[in-house]
This record gives sequence, structure tokens and C-alpha cells, in this order.
Amino acid sequence: MKEADVVVVGGSAAGIPAATTARKHYPERSVLLVRKEEQVLIPCGIPYIFGTVGSASKNLIPDDVLEKNGIEFLVDEVTDIDRQKREITTASGEEIGYDKLVLATGSLPIVPPIPGFDKENVFVVNKSVPYLQGLMGALDGASDLVVIGGGYIGVEFAAECRKNRDVNVTLVELLPHCLMLGYDQEICSVVDHEVAACGVNVFTGEKVEEIVGDEKVETVRLASGKELKTDVVIIGIGAAANTKLAKKAGLDLDAAGGIKVDRAMKTSDENIFACGDCAGKFSFFTGKPSNIRLASIAAAEARIAGANLFESRRQNVGAIGVYAVPLGDTVFACAGLTDKDAQKNGYETVVGEAESPNRHPGCMPGAAALKVKLVFDKATSVLLGGQVVGGESAGELVNVISACIQQKMTAEDIAVFQMGTHPALTASPIAYQLVNAAETAAGAMM
Amino acid sequence: MKEADVVVVGGSAAGIPAATTARKHYPERSVLLVRKEEQVLIPCGIPYIFGTVGSASKNLIPDDVLEKNGIEFLVDEVTDIDRQKREITTASGEEIGYDKLVLATGSLPIVPPIPGFDKENVFVVNKSVPYLQGLMGALDGASDLVVIGGGYIGVEFAAECRKNRDVNVTLVELLPHCLMLGYDQEICSVVDHEVAACGVNVFTGEKVEEIVGDEKVETVRLASGKELKTDVVIIGIGAAANTKLAKKAGLDLDAAGGIKVDRAMKTSDENIFACGDCAGKFSFFTGKPSNIRLASIAAAEARIAGANLFESRRQNVGAIGVYAVPLGDTVFACAGLTDKDAQKNGYETVVGEAESPNRHPGCMPGAAALKVKLVFDKATSVLLGGQVVGGESAGELVNVISACIQQKMTAEDIAVFQMGTHPALTASPIAYQLVNAAETAAGAMM
Repeated sequence: MKEADVVVVGGSAAGIPAATTARKHYPERSVLLVRKEEQVLIPCGIPYIFGTVGSASKNLIPDDVLEKNGIEFLVDEVTDIDRQKREITTASGEEIGYDKLVLATGSLPIVPPIPGFDKENVFVVNKSVPYLQGLMGALDGASDLVVIGGGYIGVEFAAECRKNRDVNVTLVELLPHCLMLGYDQEICSVVDHEVAACGVNVFTGEKVEEIVGDEKVETVRLASGKELKTDVVIIGIGAAANTKLAKKAGLDLDAAGGIKVDRAMKTSDENIFACGDCAGKFSFFTGKPSNIRLASIAAAEARIAGANLFESRRQNVGAIGVYAVPLGDTVFACAGLTDKDAQKNGYETVVGEAESPNRHPGCMPGAAALKVKLVFDKATSVLLGGQVVGGESAGELVNVISACIQQKMTAEDIAVFQMGTHPALTASPIAYQLVNAAETAAGAMM
Repeated sequence: MKEADVVVVGGSAAGIPAATTARKHYPERSVLLVRKEEQVLIPCGIPYIFGTVGSASKNLIPDDVLEKNGIEFLVDEVTDIDRQKREITTASGEEIGYDKLVLATGSLPIVPPIPGFDKENVFVVNKSVPYLQGLMGALDGASDLVVIGGGYIGVEFAAECRKNRDVNVTLVELLPHCLMLGYDQEICSVVDHEVAACGVNVFTGEKVEEIVGDEKVETVRLASGKELKTDVVIIGIGAAANTKLAKKAGLDLDAAGGIKVDRAMKTSDENIFACGDCAGKFSFFTGKPSNIRLASIAAAEARIAGANLFESRRQNVGAIGVYAVPLGDTVFACAGLTDKDAQKNGYETVVGEAESPNRHPGCMPGAAALKVKLVFDKATSVLLGGQVVGGESAGELVNVISACIQQKMTAEDIAVFQMGTHPALTASPIAYQLVNAAETAAGAMM
């Protein structure tokens, strides 16, 4: 029988760093990664396949990261775990013994209870190369596309499918704005505008009632009575933990349906860890269960799980939620709680905002307005969240904000932050938005 | 007699935030800013006047930041301080009473003891519009230019003067590489290469012995015997605190020649504060005097000084030193100590490095290799410094590193950092360089 000290189930944003971290922390242990996909898609890159990147085969995680780190891998589906014997069984009938097991089985797209969702040319966002090639084929020659869901996946799909393609794209979102989980309302209005500027018809505050058609989808009927003629539908309304294997093995799940884990990422079986989309999450801020599922969180959890396999070394502090998305020339980025969510969670908040060009002087090439909004807890002055609207640099600026959040920095701390600036890369030291937003909030808290 | 509660002397990267911070923290107090320049240059933008920006008049700090914040300003030179009476006198004979005084008189370019430096067409980097217009005129029609000094100012001047101008540019640096104060040797080699790729002849490890010519400069003679024919010389070898006014007023200076200040930025006179290039500096790491002079440090110090005028509110933790520079398509950015400097200061260090594309997949537009090098203190695992070589995002990524340094984060802390990533903006969560560099160092310290 095949054996490995560590077996990792899953080969994406959680599985890979879990395996590499295990190798780094326990170099004397053998690590075997088992995944069911022949080729692994870069999950965050999936929408870009349909525009900027052009094909699924260009959006793959190369296997050399495993090879370079001395990790064996096997393409096969794990179907059973014998926790007593510490063995897994695969679809092809192989039995593999383990000392420690890491479940990184990811998530599955949520299929909404909409009548007609099973019609032909209705797609969810499955992380499978052949499935997405099917979607690509369906888009060929399509005149109309409806995207259901105005979260990150939805807006990215809508904007990317519109690129270099003569198709009429309509995005339907239930909430009053796109990206409402990440941004406060005034910024969401800018998001809606930018999605529309990408050539997408944005229908917000609209509920999909039925997907209509014979075999193939023909129209999408909204609760408001509108009928959207379409050739293809893409549903991107979120993902749920893939816990099939864990459930079958009798592992505990949490209230939100993820695999129950402690702060070491250990499941209810002391020899089994879980990380990434399949694992339960809790909020960094409130300690309450969280539904945030991001590749970046998956990777961070995996680095915790991998380090803890044979000895407790790292603790999960809870999910912050940091993400960015470019829409046209504007990048939207956020970390932590919005003002609205902070208040919903019982915080009294103080907000600081600052806007100025992201170059100095403002005539430097690439200059664009960059705005930072910071949300602080009034009681402690600690940073709870930040939102950025700007150019490309917003993608890393939000990570400065994330560092400030993780370190529980106060408005005062950030007001005297020592940042680097450069005419061609950032705002001037006088106008640096992060610091000025903090100073404004610090002033309001005095 | 004119009077103001707060008088700020100097109108640039320290003076402006000192004044605006004073207004924010003490809104009931009047603030008057006195500066000698009719127009204030953006200091970091000065090299860009000669290439990308095109003229000094496009590189000015607008006065509306003062007006919007209710700060009165006066263009005049302060010539005397009567500390007993709390009055300043200006060149035009005006006497102005103050309650608190902030000195933000900046720095003056260092003029090296090179014979011939006073010849015509030899320029230092004076922050004066008419002076720089003189340099611009001298460059018109020049066939050859020699830049002395391979620090930030020198490499920026060399690269910018070469842009859109048919001139043969030679840079002369005493040390073995350009930018040796900010980067370790292997990165400095890349810097030298990129400066050369901008069309600049790079002469490192060369000492200038004499600037030769009748009235005008004709050649620059090096200690190695080389003679560089030239029409114009620009000297950019650093700046020294401008303490003329402070000295005349009998304020204490520190050993390095800056105005002596405590951690509140207060001078030896309890009613006078100093900040920016004119003020003494100490290292965040060692507490020893530091010669780092940057607009970003000036602004941070000014935000401390302005907040402390009437009540002690903020403390200076010492200069970290964070800066970035683009050369061609490559951005070099650094924060804190290099490995070499850390060792020189008695630290035993552990280095972690990671390199991968700054996009995912690597075929996304704008993709380029991005490398992060982190330097940790082996004894405590605390981050001491970081160096980044990459694309535009390096300019803010170095601020993530700065936040980690300011918060004394360890390799372990950074290895589980929750960053945001996006295909079009950053590395993948698996390959994110900052985290992987920290993980490598954490592994080496186990």
C-alpha cells in the first residue's frame, strides 16, 4: 500500500501552500498531494479566461511548484477516509496510508433555486477546464449574455465577456448595487458606473424569477416583469464549502456548513486538518462565523495548517477579507469591515477619507485620483476596515491597510506612518491618502 | 505688530503638514506660514522637470492646500528669532509675534570640496525655480552632461536628462555601485544595469578630482585619470540641514549638524519645534543619529511636531527610511536596513527572498518579475528591512514592508499575513513574494 507522512487532498490555493508549508516545516516528512483535476485552474483568473487571457489553458497553476518542493502528486479523486486506519481510498481504487491528512477540497458554486437553472447554456462557475471550455463554446456567436450576481465574480465575468466580443451583456444583481459586501454605498455607486462603462447593462435591485426556454435558455424573467432575451446565462452568486468527503468521514461541520476547525486549522479528528474554502471561517473582528471565501484566505489558512501538522506552531486570527478588482481603468480594493458592516456589528465608527492624485505632480504619466476611506472603532480608535478607489497601486495599497488592521493600529498610529513616496508611483508625502484619512479620523476622535 | 499663535518657517514637505496638522489639532489657534520662495517646488519631482514633466512651473506645490486649511501665508525670509520676546524678523523688516514656532527650513545641497566646482555650468540641486530654469537653459544644446553622485537624485537626474534630449550623459559614483545606501550589492548591480539601459554611461568606483575649464566647465577629471568632456555638470551628492536661522538664534544642534530635537520634535527652546531636513534624525533601529533626509520623513515628523505644539500628543519613533525609484520599466524600492547595514550595526541577520511574476497567470498584461528580499534579526525574528525589485506595484508594496517594520512584525507574523491579490494587480496568493520571503526566513530560523 502507498503511504505518505502527509497527504493533502486538493491542489489549488489551499492544497498547494499546505503541502509546501508542510515540506518547509517538516522537511523529513514525505508529502503527497492528491487532486482530481488533470489541470488546475488559477481560481481568481477564471473570469479573465473569457477576455484578457483568452483560454483556460493559459490560466493554469504550473505543477513545477510541487516538483520543486519535493512534493509527490497524484491525479485521482479521494472517495473515502478511514480515520481508524488512517487511510484514504481513491476513485481508481488506490489505498493510501497517512500520518496527517489535510483537506483542501475547496468549494462548489451555489446553484440558486431558480426555476430553469438546469437549461442548456446556463453555466455556474465550475473550476474545471472542460466545463469552462463548454462555456467558451457557448459564448461563440452568442448575441446576448446574462450574468446573474453582481459580486466580484459576476462583475469580472460581465466585463471580461464583453471584451473583444460582440455580445450584449446584462448583469442582474439582487441588491441595490454591485459589490455591496465589500464597499459602502457611495463607492458602490462608482462601481456600478464603472461596470456600465465596460459596456455592461447593469440591472441592480432586480430578482431573477425564472430562466425560460425549451431545452436551451431563451430569456431570463425578472420579478419586476422585465424579460431579458439571452443565449447564455452565467450564474456567479457565491460558493459553498465542498464538505462531501469530510461529511462522509464523520467529521464535524460548523453552523455555516464548513468543516469545523480550531485556530490551528485542526478538525474534530486530531490527525486531520482542513483549510481554504472547505473549512469553516470566523471573522477577525467579531469572532463570529464568516462566509468570506477567497483564494488569499485559503493560502493563509494553508500556511497555518501546514505548519501545525506535527506540532502547534501557528494560530488563525480569523478572516479579514482583503480583495481588489480593476474595472476599466479604476481599481476598487477593500480590506476588513465596511462602515455599514461595522455598525451592523455594534461598533460606533469614525470614518476618515482622503482623495488626491496618485502621482506628484498630477501631470505625471498615469496620474489618476486615488481615494482612501478608513473605518475606525470609536471606542478604541483601532482600524476596522479600508476601501480604496484608484489606479493600479490600489492593489498593494490595500495590503498596507490590511497590515494596519492585522496589527490593530489606531488612527494615531497611521497618522504618523512612515511611508515611501515617489512622483511616478504615489501621492506626495503631503497628500498621501492613507495618512491623511487617518489624520482626519484622529481629529474627529479627539 | 503682526501676530499668530503658530508661525511655521518653511513651506515645503515639512512646513505644510506641520501647519495643517497644527490647524487640525488646535483649530482655535491661528497659523501663519512664512516661506522665502514665491513658488514652492515639489522636492521629489525636481529631477522629473528635466524629462517627463518638462518644466519647473509644472512641478509646484499648489497654495490651495494652505488656503483650504485656513492657514495664512507670507512670502518673505525669516532672518532672526527673538526667543525672549517670541518674535521673528523678516528680510523685509516685518516683525511677527508667535506663541509657538516651527522651523522647517529644509536642507541645502552639499557642495563637495572639488576644485572647480564654482565654474559656470556646474549646478547643484537647489530647490529654486529660477536656479533650475538656469540649469534647463544650460542643458539646451548641450552635447555632454556629467552627473556626479549615484544616489537617488543622481540616477534620477541622469535618466531624466537623457529623455527626449540628444545629450551624452555620464554618471560618476564614488562607491562600487549606484544606490548603495538603499540596497544590497546584488540588487545594486541590477540598478547599475538599469541606469545604463536608460542610455546613461555609468562610471562607478570613480572619484572626481577636478572640474576643469576656463570660465565654463570643459572636462571632469577623475582620480583614475579619465577625462570626461562636458558642457554641464550636475552635482547630486546629498543635502545637509539648513540650520542658519536656528544657529543664529542659539538653538542647540546635534552631533550630525541638525537642529537638536527630542522625540516630540521640540528643540532646546520649549516654544520652538523643528521638523524635516533641518532637524536632527535618529534611526528607528539603533537609536543612533541618522543622515536620512527624505520628504516622506519630513512629512511624518511635521505631523508629530504640529500635533505637539500645545500639548504632548505624538512621539517620533525614529527614521525608517522608505523610498522607491523607477528606472526604465523597473522599480526599485526599499525600507529600513539592508542586510549589509544591519550586520554593520551588530545584528546577526537571516534573509528570505522570493521572486515570481507580479500578475497571475504570468501572461496577464503588464506582468514582470517581482522580487522581495527581507532582512530579519536572527535573535528576535523581527523584520529590519526589505528591498523590492519589480513593476509599478513595488511603490506601495514597500509600504506594506514599512508597516511590518514599524509594527516590529516577525517572520512568523508575515508568513501568515492576510494579503489581497488579484490576477491583474499582484502575484497569486500561492506566490505572493512578501509572504514567501518571510516563510523562507522563518524556516531558516527554526
